[in-house]
Amino acid sequence: MRELRKDPVLGRWVIIAPDRASRPDEFATDYDHFAGFDPQHDPFREGQEHLTPPEVYALRPVGSEPNGPGWKVRVIPNKFPALGIEGDLNPRGYGLYDRMNGVGAHEVVIESPDPYLLFWDMPLTHLVDVFNTFKVRVEDLSRDKRFAYVLPFKNHGPAAGASLRHSHSQIIATPIVPKRVLEEIQGAQNHWNIKRRSIFVDIVDQELMTQERIVFQNDHMLAYCPFASTSPFEIHILPKRQMSDFRRAGTEEIRALAEAVKVCLRKWLGAIGACQFNFLIHTAPNDTEIMGVYHEFPMLDAFYCWHLEMFPRLTKAAGFEWGTGYYINATPPEEAAEFLRGIEVSVS
Amino acid sequence: MRELRKDPVLGRWVIIAPDRASRPDEFATDYDHFAGFDPQHDPFREGQEHLTPPEVYALRPVGSEPNGPGWKVRVIPNKFPALGIEGDLNPRGYGLYDRMNGVGAHEVVIESPDPYLLFWDMPLTHLVDVFNTFKVRVEDLSRDKRFAYVLPFKNHGPAAGASLRHSHSQIIATPIVPKRVLEEIQGAQNHWNIKRRSIFVDIVDQELMTQERIVFQNDHMLAYCPFASTSPFEIHILPKRQMSDFRRAGTEEIRALAEAVKVCLRKWLGAIGACQFNFLIHTAPNDTEIMGVYHEFPMLDAFYCWHLEMFPRLTKAAGFEWGTGYYINATPPEEAAEFLRGIEVSVS
Repeated sequence: MRELRKDPVLGRWVIIAPDRASRPDEFATDYDHFAGFDPQHDPFREGQEHLTPPEVYALRPVGSEPNGPGWKVRVIPNKFPALGIEGDLNPRGYGLYDRMNGVGAHEVVIESPDPYLLFWDMPLTHLVDVFNTFKVRVEDLSRDKRFAYVLPFKNHGPAAGASLRHSHSQIIATPIVPKRVLEEIQGAQNHWNIKRRSIFVDIVDQELMTQERIVFQNDHMLAYCPFASTSPFEIHILPKRQMSDFRRAGTEEIRALAEAVKVCLRKWLGAIGACQFNFLIHTAPNDTEIMGVYHEFPMLDAFYCWHLEMFPRLTKAAGFEWGTGYYINATPPEEAAEFLRGIEVSVS
Repeated sequence: MRELRKDPVLGRWVIIAPDRASRPDEFATDYDHFAGFDPQHDPFREGQEHLTPPEVYALRPVGSEPNGPGWKVRVIPNKFPALGIEGDLNPRGYGLYDRMNGVGAHEVVIESPDPYLLFWDMPLTHLVDVFNTFKVRVEDLSRDKRFAYVLPFKNHGPAAGASLRHSHSQIIATPIVPKRVLEEIQGAQNHWNIKRRSIFVDIVDQELMTQERIVFQNDHMLAYCPFASTSPFEIHILPKRQMSDFRRAGTEEIRALAEAVKVCLRKWLGAIGACQFNFLIHTAPNDTEIMGVYHEFPMLDAFYCWHLEMFPRLTKAAGFEWGTGYYINATPPEEAAEFLRGIEVSVS
């Protein structure tokens, strides 16, 4: 049965059309991660640190030299940054139009010194290091009063936008709160206006009540296929405790997040194979000189909640998605979650 | 110089980052349209009409039999529709969530009986037939009071979402006004509130004033690379006369639209090769039983203007675009337009 479903936060409608290809084995996913890969020219490999810009942060033993070997996780400026770190925004008009300088930060998180180690094969303790690195970099970049938002995200595989094979993620700091995040905030504000509750808490409660879309949970995190999933096997991970800002996640919560992500990735591996994927972390914005988010949304910390969104790249957006901002998804999230629950994984 | 630019209608920011790949010859585009194509199994070919659902409309000689050969353009229901034509919407809650039946229409416009004729090789008179067919189908589907919106769009090539090689486009009728269209309407309403003018007229005026982003124009249409283009070589085509509804386009305007689209496609061919692409037509929504767009925006016909958007598929959206709703574009639209202006094409 075809159905239209509305995202409760974004107000975005999704078409669930399950008579199209929807079973996990109908997606062509298996991707040879290392076809044509030459580690000799891998700038992210241990021992080839001179091939990258100087590091801005690294997890390395006390006393080891920056930009030399010995690190576990290493953060560098993107060699081809979308936004540049220098200068002022200088917002200005151009007739009818608005422009400003492309000021921001664009960093690369090299998740491991090993060119052949894939994200889902990293030990859990190592993934905890990676997520802690995200937190440290978000904290640091948020101190720059030009930046309204800091987004950690990962592109895995060329179909997901990754141009290098060595496992890495990225962090972009932007001078404007992203449209998608503002939409989440406005949707959550609408819910707050009526209910005086965080919509994210209400989502956690309903998902725990019905159980039908849950993929995994631990003490601190709930991983579920969202009611209005835009793509097959999409998963959101929400903290069980209402918390607007990713920077406030404690040691146990970061560990629980890393565990949930690893479990979900291993379940994808079992269900749909070595897929290409994206994930990203949404968190509360910062007030800046030109944008006062907390002025506009004073109760933001009560009604907005940080979270992680992850989705395998199984389908291609086409004219319909572009023209409407809506999505067609052939796999009902209840079926996706049931399938993923059935995949046994052990994670350490 | 990196720059942030704001879309004047959508309020969406785009990062113009021209030190990344930006020259036309840096995009790998040439796509072998017919590799592996077997016309014997082409359901859209003349003489194989029995392989499709019965036609809902066709341009064919007086007296010729429906669902037989002899047609020029043929419209059929999609065999795997995203939305089904039968039934009521039946909107209802599910705890916190909202859902309704997947009611709508999903049609395929077979643009020519010839399996090997590509869109950009069709004679102009034939393209006029195709665009007139869009108009006829939009008119017809708009009469159904369940449908708030009708979107004609084209996916050309698998990277653009096309699953069949025979040149075709699609029409989807949805019971909800698409988010993207509502955003355009809200942006245009904001401009109307301040200026009492259509922002689309103001855009035409500024583009004609500066000339720097114009690709092509004729008496009725202006084709230009938008100031905040989200992708390289993106082109918008706006009527020079303010007109909210595509259904009101006259004979001369449809002919001028077909000419502008063909000229722009041939310029793409000359500049970047046989690329895969999408286009879509945005027009004013309809009032329906559950959505009163004209009640909410009574001056809609004064401030909204239908238009066509077209973009070659040269880049892949990744975690950043998904997480932010913003775009990174390596080719400044002024450079793209200058390059396209330099490509000589003659169209008939």
